[in-house]
Amino acid sequence: MAVTLPDDVVLERGGRIVLVVMDGLGGLPHAEHGRTELEAARTPNLDALARRAALGLHIPVEHGIAPGSGPGHLALFGYDPLRYDIGRGVLSALGVGFALEPGDIAIRLNFATLDAAGRVVDRRAGRPSDAENRRLIERLRSGVAAPRGVRVFFEPEKEHRAVLVLRGDGLLPEVTDTDPQAEGVPPLVSEAKVDGARATASALNAVLGEARRVLAGEPAANALLARGIDAYARLPSFGERFHLRAQAIARYPMYNGVARLVGMDARPLSATDADSVGVLEAGFTEYAFHFIHFKAIDSRGEDGDFAAKVAAIEAVDALMPRIVSLAPDVLLVTGDHSTPATWRAHSWHPVPILIASRWCRGSADAVFGERSCLAGELGVFPAVRIMSLALAHAGRLAKYGA
Amino acid sequence: MAVTLPDDVVLERGGRIVLVVMDGLGGLPHAEHGRTELEAARTPNLDALARRAALGLHIPVEHGIAPGSGPGHLALFGYDPLRYDIGRGVLSALGVGFALEPGDIAIRLNFATLDAAGRVVDRRAGRPSDAENRRLIERLRSGVAAPRGVRVFFEPEKEHRAVLVLRGDGLLPEVTDTDPQAEGVPPLVSEAKVDGARATASALNAVLGEARRVLAGEPAANALLARGIDAYARLPSFGERFHLRAQAIARYPMYNGVARLVGMDARPLSATDADSVGVLEAGFTEYAFHFIHFKAIDSRGEDGDFAAKVAAIEAVDALMPRIVSLAPDVLLVTGDHSTPATWRAHSWHPVPILIASRWCRGSADAVFGERSCLAGELGVFPAVRIMSLALAHAGRLAKYGA
Repeated sequence: MAVTLPDDVVLERGGRIVLVVMDGLGGLPHAEHGRTELEAARTPNLDALARRAALGLHIPVEHGIAPGSGPGHLALFGYDPLRYDIGRGVLSALGVGFALEPGDIAIRLNFATLDAAGRVVDRRAGRPSDAENRRLIERLRSGVAAPRGVRVFFEPEKEHRAVLVLRGDGLLPEVTDTDPQAEGVPPLVSEAKVDGARATASALNAVLGEARRVLAGEPAANALLARGIDAYARLPSFGERFHLRAQAIARYPMYNGVARLVGMDARPLSATDADSVGVLEAGFTEYAFHFIHFKAIDSRGEDGDFAAKVAAIEAVDALMPRIVSLAPDVLLVTGDHSTPATWRAHSWHPVPILIASRWCRGSADAVFGERSCLAGELGVFPAVRIMSLALAHAGRLAKYGA
Repeated sequence: MAVTLPDDVVLERGGRIVLVVMDGLGGLPHAEHGRTELEAARTPNLDALARRAALGLHIPVEHGIAPGSGPGHLALFGYDPLRYDIGRGVLSALGVGFALEPGDIAIRLNFATLDAAGRVVDRRAGRPSDAENRRLIERLRSGVAAPRGVRVFFEPEKEHRAVLVLRGDGLLPEVTDTDPQAEGVPPLVSEAKVDGARATASALNAVLGEARRVLAGEPAANALLARGIDAYARLPSFGERFHLRAQAIARYPMYNGVARLVGMDARPLSATDADSVGVLEAGFTEYAFHFIHFKAIDSRGEDGDFAAKVAAIEAVDALMPRIVSLAPDVLLVTGDHSTPATWRAHSWHPVPILIASRWCRGSADAVFGERSCLAGELGVFPAVRIMSLALAHAGRLAKYGA
């Protein structure tokens, strides 16, 4: 699936495209009434769109694979996540707006709580507030001594999440995580997976040791766990591949990060979903492609709260008239993966998608729901093909072959 | 399709999986009533499962390709048969329990009847009984002189089928078959496809010449035809790839052979299908993955006997309650390929599959049949992805990417 478009078919101009991502949209049936979250939600605006749209279900990565947010969005943007296997550290660093340079090693951190014996008792340090996170990061910035020849950057993300960037000659990302992904055991020591990465493992272990020294008096966040370790390398950009000037509108850094990785302009984080729509409205004529991200649906799925996920879907539906009234040539609505409330996590289930444009066959009795989409004209297909369909419906693809 | 799962997503533990293979399950409509064999069969137990399952159709190898049993089962087990192109000889040798060593050349044999002019008049020598097969093999074992530097092993299979293994330094599998796949013509002479395989072709021709000398007086089985010639090389095992301890339950050596190739424990051949279910019941808690194979459906399809194929499907349906009552976390029912009674052979038609688990969207009006499966949530998809779905539904796959 790595090559999604033949050479030389992407045109320089064409219609305007809006991609609405309802994070974690897909679901599973409720035990009592048998409807999924999306099927149970009252979504008059999405249903009206569905009647004049092409419907289908996309498989984010591969059959059976539950993607994280990074791979899920890369696929939506037309980048095969199995080819572009990008560590969470890089995505997080981009997400917080850190100016990564080629060769930087970016690492996702959790603040964690260790007990007196050095065992992890809370992998998220009681979920500190964002303000508390920033205070802890300041302590680290002023207290941690950098290993010789390495520059060290700490950046706060949200709650217990932070980012570490190591910059220096010859650093390699082939080192193991220190996050044991379990509680009741001590953090792991990072090890080189290849000979050339020994200095990197050693630098990382030194920085994490320094961090424990600096954080020793903290009641909750007295250690760091490292994972998602990767080096930054630029991807072929959205502009290069699709000839699209694109903007990303989101409320959480992660989504801006993955958008920036493919060369979109990431707008300042919005405070509310309604504000996000305002940013879309304000910049609508400036960009040919707009990615707008709505997060709450996924969060309520992860909470296992079916009714709250339904409500979160309805809240996005209520914002749709503002988006529809902008009259984009192509309006796509989908999720980056499913997050069924019964499963309480990202899942592998195919995700409903709607592509509204003048150029659909459509179905007069369609609604926007998993089983209605299963009968749709797009079938069940890989997410990495969505961008090709978006471009095609926007009149942005030339005929392939004379 | 070679890589079916990203690195590091397969968990060490999770739910129990049962894969029921109804060999040759898929069919074509009857000329009079328009229903396929599976649609015509009374299958209340499979239909009840279908209502709480994910349904779809799988393409065993590629569009239009009718697979043999080996490729068909490899694909079901998650091994792309176009990547792991394993000769029938190797599958047969494993199937009869022969202890192949790396480098062994395994060859599928038919006992055949030649006329006085040396032309094949029956490619199956009148289908000798198994006892007769064993008597013939004993004659070959005691009568055939091995070529210099080569050890020769003959093994009986069923009816007209046998296995020849050549063991020696420098033998290569790149030699042509001697089975002309037609009657009225003489057997072919094996030829080397590459320079280095000349000694192997010569050894094979010598052994087959010896066999004709030894069998010269036989009324029916007076020659051997060789095909499916391959060298034995171990595959990455089911345990290594999927962290599953697996057992195979079958009545015919071939199916045990392909299961053993991927590292399953092959149980002693069962005498009846009901006995096979008994083996499943007895070993249910010992294994995390169970492959149970039902053969008769395919055989009746090859006979061209629509009604008998329907009855064979109904016989398996009648066994399903015993399997369902074991309450596996994931129960898959499918075939390795289609064998429509009207076609009288393996065919390329997509094969119905059901995956019953707690984690399906499901459809209240579903039944288990080709056209009902076509409306199912799995869509039409490659068989090599089935194992990913089985693992996902068993909770055995971690999220891919943070």
